[in-house]
Amino acid sequence: MTPPPHDPPRHARPLPYGVVRVRVRGGGPRPALRDGDHALLLAELALPPDPDLAHAARAPELNALIELGPPAWAAVQQAAADPPPAARVPLGDCEPVRPVRVSDFVDFYASLEHAANLGAIFRPGTPPVRDNWRHMPIGYHGRASTIVVSGTDVRRPSGQTALGALAPTGQLDLECELGYVCGPSAAGPIAIDRAEEHIFGVVLVNDWSARDVQRLEYEPLGPFLGKSFATSMSAWITPLAALAGARTPPPPQDPPPAPYLIAQRPWLLDVELAIELNGEVVSRPRANRLYWTPAQMLAHLTVNGARLSAGDLVATGTISGADPGTEGSLAERYGGERWLADGDAVVLRGRAGDVELDPVRGRIVAASAPG
Amino acid sequence: MTPPPHDPPRHARPLPYGVVRVRVRGGGPRPALRDGDHALLLAELALPPDPDLAHAARAPELNALIELGPPAWAAVQQAAADPPPAARVPLGDCEPVRPVRVSDFVDFYASLEHAANLGAIFRPGTPPVRDNWRHMPIGYHGRASTIVVSGTDVRRPSGQTALGALAPTGQLDLECELGYVCGPSAAGPIAIDRAEEHIFGVVLVNDWSARDVQRLEYEPLGPFLGKSFATSMSAWITPLAALAGARTPPPPQDPPPAPYLIAQRPWLLDVELAIELNGEVVSRPRANRLYWTPAQMLAHLTVNGARLSAGDLVATGTISGADPGTEGSLAERYGGERWLADGDAVVLRGRAGDVELDPVRGRIVAASAPG
Repeated sequence: MTPPPHDPPRHARPLPYGVVRVRVRGGGPRPALRDGDHALLLAELALPPDPDLAHAARAPELNALIELGPPAWAAVQQAAADPPPAARVPLGDCEPVRPVRVSDFVDFYASLEHAANLGAIFRPGTPPVRDNWRHMPIGYHGRASTIVVSGTDVRRPSGQTALGALAPTGQLDLECELGYVCGPSAAGPIAIDRAEEHIFGVVLVNDWSARDVQRLEYEPLGPFLGKSFATSMSAWITPLAALAGARTPPPPQDPPPAPYLIAQRPWLLDVELAIELNGEVVSRPRANRLYWTPAQMLAHLTVNGARLSAGDLVATGTISGADPGTEGSLAERYGGERWLADGDAVVLRGRAGDVELDPVRGRIVAASAPG
Repeated sequence: MTPPPHDPPRHARPLPYGVVRVRVRGGGPRPALRDGDHALLLAELALPPDPDLAHAARAPELNALIELGPPAWAAVQQAAADPPPAARVPLGDCEPVRPVRVSDFVDFYASLEHAANLGAIFRPGTPPVRDNWRHMPIGYHGRASTIVVSGTDVRRPSGQTALGALAPTGQLDLECELGYVCGPSAAGPIAIDRAEEHIFGVVLVNDWSARDVQRLEYEPLGPFLGKSFATSMSAWITPLAALAGARTPPPPQDPPPAPYLIAQRPWLLDVELAIELNGEVVSRPRANRLYWTPAQMLAHLTVNGARLSAGDLVATGTISGADPGTEGSLAERYGGERWLADGDAVVLRGRAGDVELDPVRGRIVAASAPG
């Protein structure tokens, strides 16, 4: 069916990817695209005849599709332009599940304002940003198996909130981040000017944090139980190609980094973020002032020979601005005067031009009774 | 066939698990047990009729078997007591592959001597062991996708060996560790006295480290590219039950830790380790003086609500003794006078009584030419 000429072209942009359970049909989770208020089930689309693609369209997570690479992604988007009726399911009949099995989760620390704010909180009296910070994107591996889909409740974790004493955290925080869901890479470092070929799509990430636990445990091996209890991601992954209009040059870097971190045309995504706490917007960070770019993160992550796997999640770290009301965490926003309470509902939103990223929702539930 | 009465009982201990490609038969990787100089292919054993077990016996990695839990592990060991001839393949006809897809890799820092040695090297002039160290097992998440099987060459990684300057590491080191391959856990913390139920088996681990890279990057988020290029593990996983005779009480802990870390009958495995460099034993660490026990590590790792997944790898961190010649890394053994050169061959060995753990071998190959 050719649309009538006065309609806008169908799917002018590639559609977001996800995995849904269809309530009325039963069965397991199924890969889908989101077209407005409908899901398009991949297995019902007229895909090119290819056994790997047919398998990926029926897998319970997107990893197999991601593994197949950009030509397969394009084939899926093409098939979605004219979906048969059996493929279209109202979103109201779907329950989105975690769209990928995250292979490795790497969280960076790409916002200078956040690094300075957190350094001042955790290490008062010392320079908040260390000497290494401007020379490389500092990052670490987080726990992949506790990444949950938007809408999953987050149980208040317990930990050592004072040395030797176990208690539910009294300083539960959120962190507002962008995440890049990655495709695989071959052996050898990713050249910075080809890094974007390895990005499947973009999500919002809430890296929940127990600050009292984190503060006592993080030296010298980094954050561990203060973060590893839960990390929430969008249910729908926005293809990078859908965000072409949101690219913006990053701020200048001083000193200039090593050559493997210098791109010909560096870019950030100018995403306007909002942190909603119980329905009220409490902060509006913006991603257009991050110091380190996604291409720099991928080039750095692989410069030692580590490959990307299909389904790796690489996140920016907390995105904070310099102005009050643009902080990416409660610790920064309220200076320790306000933490998450049981029952609090958090929504992270992100908009890039006229593209809305899938929001990330989470509600805090009370800690388990001690066992 | 009943063995003649003068023979020792067949398989007095459970056999090690692995995954092999059988050269002469072709086909993909297949789960196996190791019986002396033969592999026993799980798919050829007379297993109880169970579709999940049949699937696990044909999977390309052990995760599905581990997921099924201790009853399935016992069924496999039982079936191995009287294997049909088709199941037995000489080890010489097999190529072992990585036995598990590691879900999350957590590396601890359980040796007080190692923590003190490394702290003195990385932070001279400050107390080498921080205040938190005796209150909780300090650990962090490593990269799971770069865990490789014994015998895999290790390419010298590049990284920022000076701030702003990319170069092949000049301080390539090894770390001698024990690793625990874990089964899944239910929601909620693992009670310390039940932690061992979640351990599938034991391996040796070489956590290769680029010290110059690690030193410049690890503050404040912990080790990253200095470790993430490769971690080697044994091809064969020794069941924990095979090491019952190697249990030994740990050293006393002062101060006593929080109650969730206090076991009724704490134990370590008394594994005598050896680090071979180009055929010469250069150090003999011993695992019977680790400060933190495996049960403490699993209780701590899950106290915040994080679950174990089938195939998680939890390692001790470098095992170092107090005496010269018992260090677990070259940095400690040689004080910076000796690092790994291209062509060096490293073998880690471990023996617990009369049980030999599968050695971990690795040879250093030259860094890639700059791209």
